[in-house]
Amino acid sequence: MSQAKAYAAFDAESPLGPWNFERREVGEHDVQIEIKYCGVCHSDLHQVRNEWGGSMYPLVPGHEIVGVITKVGSKVKKFKEGDLAGVGCFVDSCRECHSCKDGLEQYCEVHNVGTYNSYERDNKTITYGGYSSQIVVDENYTLKIPKNLDLARSAPLLCAGITTYSPIMQWNIGAGHKVGIVGLGGLGHMAVKIAAAKGSEVTVLSTSPAKEQDARDLGAHNFAVTKDPETLKELRNSFDFIIDTVSAPHDYNLYLSMLKRDGTMILLGAPPEPSPVAGFSLIARRKRLAGSMIGGIPETQEMLDFCAEHNIMSDIELIPISDINNAYERMLRSDVKYRFVIDMATL
Amino acid sequence: MSQAKAYAAFDAESPLGPWNFERREVGEHDVQIEIKYCGVCHSDLHQVRNEWGGSMYPLVPGHEIVGVITKVGSKVKKFKEGDLAGVGCFVDSCRECHSCKDGLEQYCEVHNVGTYNSYERDNKTITYGGYSSQIVVDENYTLKIPKNLDLARSAPLLCAGITTYSPIMQWNIGAGHKVGIVGLGGLGHMAVKIAAAKGSEVTVLSTSPAKEQDARDLGAHNFAVTKDPETLKELRNSFDFIIDTVSAPHDYNLYLSMLKRDGTMILLGAPPEPSPVAGFSLIARRKRLAGSMIGGIPETQEMLDFCAEHNIMSDIELIPISDINNAYERMLRSDVKYRFVIDMATL
Repeated sequence: MSQAKAYAAFDAESPLGPWNFERREVGEHDVQIEIKYCGVCHSDLHQVRNEWGGSMYPLVPGHEIVGVITKVGSKVKKFKEGDLAGVGCFVDSCRECHSCKDGLEQYCEVHNVGTYNSYERDNKTITYGGYSSQIVVDENYTLKIPKNLDLARSAPLLCAGITTYSPIMQWNIGAGHKVGIVGLGGLGHMAVKIAAAKGSEVTVLSTSPAKEQDARDLGAHNFAVTKDPETLKELRNSFDFIIDTVSAPHDYNLYLSMLKRDGTMILLGAPPEPSPVAGFSLIARRKRLAGSMIGGIPETQEMLDFCAEHNIMSDIELIPISDINNAYERMLRSDVKYRFVIDMATL
Repeated sequence: MSQAKAYAAFDAESPLGPWNFERREVGEHDVQIEIKYCGVCHSDLHQVRNEWGGSMYPLVPGHEIVGVITKVGSKVKKFKEGDLAGVGCFVDSCRECHSCKDGLEQYCEVHNVGTYNSYERDNKTITYGGYSSQIVVDENYTLKIPKNLDLARSAPLLCAGITTYSPIMQWNIGAGHKVGIVGLGGLGHMAVKIAAAKGSEVTVLSTSPAKEQDARDLGAHNFAVTKDPETLKELRNSFDFIIDTVSAPHDYNLYLSMLKRDGTMILLGAPPEPSPVAGFSLIARRKRLAGSMIGGIPETQEMLDFCAEHNIMSDIELIPISDINNAYERMLRSDVKYRFVIDMATL
């Protein structure tokens, strides 16, 4: 066992504060990572505040983890001490079901082990996330971080990056496609960068005219204010794909109307309540509403390599761990461009 | 001009009754068809009773038309006098947009001319449907009916047949796929026949245990009562595709839960009110909710030829035109196996 320092939530109401706990011994197939940076995802806050139910306290959030390997198990093949490494939203899975065998461990049919607030495969050991000094993970669930990426700015790739990259690959979105991006937050700003790098024509769909310059700075070719009836008329039947990153309640039919025949809208966020879909929104022009959830280990590595090749990183605000509670409040107001990342040296 | 006898609705409340009107002269590219049989689709009733708004009276319904060519225009190439011919849900379109050029005239971006209760491309001539003695249609919007099909039983292929065939082709549904069919009416019974003929393993999903024998007689391999909680548990994550033919309000999430990872549920009916979809229903296993609407002319011909090859026809109740009002009442109670077809000799 080895000591880890961390910040934890102790219940659903109180601010996060310091906590110490033990990580497991480094097993034959494990690596130990000294965590340098950890991104702050909205799902951290959902679980800290028990908004999805079932939170287990003390809860150490964080699943956008990057750092340096400090120890490797005797049978580890992919990593050596000193290598840069990353950990995303899960740290294990059953390894035997169809989804695991397809490299889609996020859809494991048996037991996907979340990086925090989850049980290990033994069904009794609780997992603790990346707001901590170090983590011990099986090498097969650990990613290689390319050296030319800025380490702090690459942390959000482990969740926000792969969550947007995966549907772009699944639906083969690229050159010749007109793509609308709904929501310009942590996910949305990565969707803009990756979709543009893939060669598609990117339009940010926003309710706020104030975001236009930011959208264009991120690489969007067009910007449209979806509160303007004239704009909505122009946008009808115009997109091949719409990537919807919004988790707040919103009207899917409005965006479906903007798809061309055979167009697809991909949901990445799950609003708290179901949203009404008119059958005719899909039937009239043979449209599709699809979902996508993070990505598997092979695709996450592919995404990191793609980002390294195209110099794509997240736009971040680096914060000391002591600012985390304030960062949550700002995140709730969407007051962040575009992802908070914790500098773990401040722990 | 030529005289046509018909049954028409004169307003939204009264029963249908006899009406005479004139069809246009047979133009260079037109064929005139003596109508032998016409299927009765639920959308006939929706429009007769103005349930979708905008109905134009007198209204002659009917878009599952089969008959014999009695006259051809001077430039007609595909047909000659005496040929069997069919007409489906539309009789013209702009012919120039992307959808028309792709042979997907049902999604014409400019003006799809419905077979009845619609305007011709001149935007002033009202179209009248198949509850009539004859019809004049451009040969390019007329289908060839294979000789080995029973003529009366092939009428419903022009709407119910193509509406179910088209999504099966679009999604490449066939051998190795487990397919659930929701609703065992005019569309559903054709979906069972066509999906089974394509080699997929077909399960009828029904709220009524009484339909099991009928489902199996139609070619379904399995039958499941979706009101039984144990059955629902067994069906979770089990289908590659679900074809949903129901137009009454129902819960999409229930059926989405039965799809495997990467599975697709295809809506063919449009319930009167939007139906709530939980984002998580789609995101958790990367599922898809899609729509499909009838089919284009080339695919309708392909479907007719496929049905001829596999001896697939609709199960029908042949009625005299004088029974149409009673048939509507029975259709409202789903008391028909599985499609009413009017014998036009009774007009």
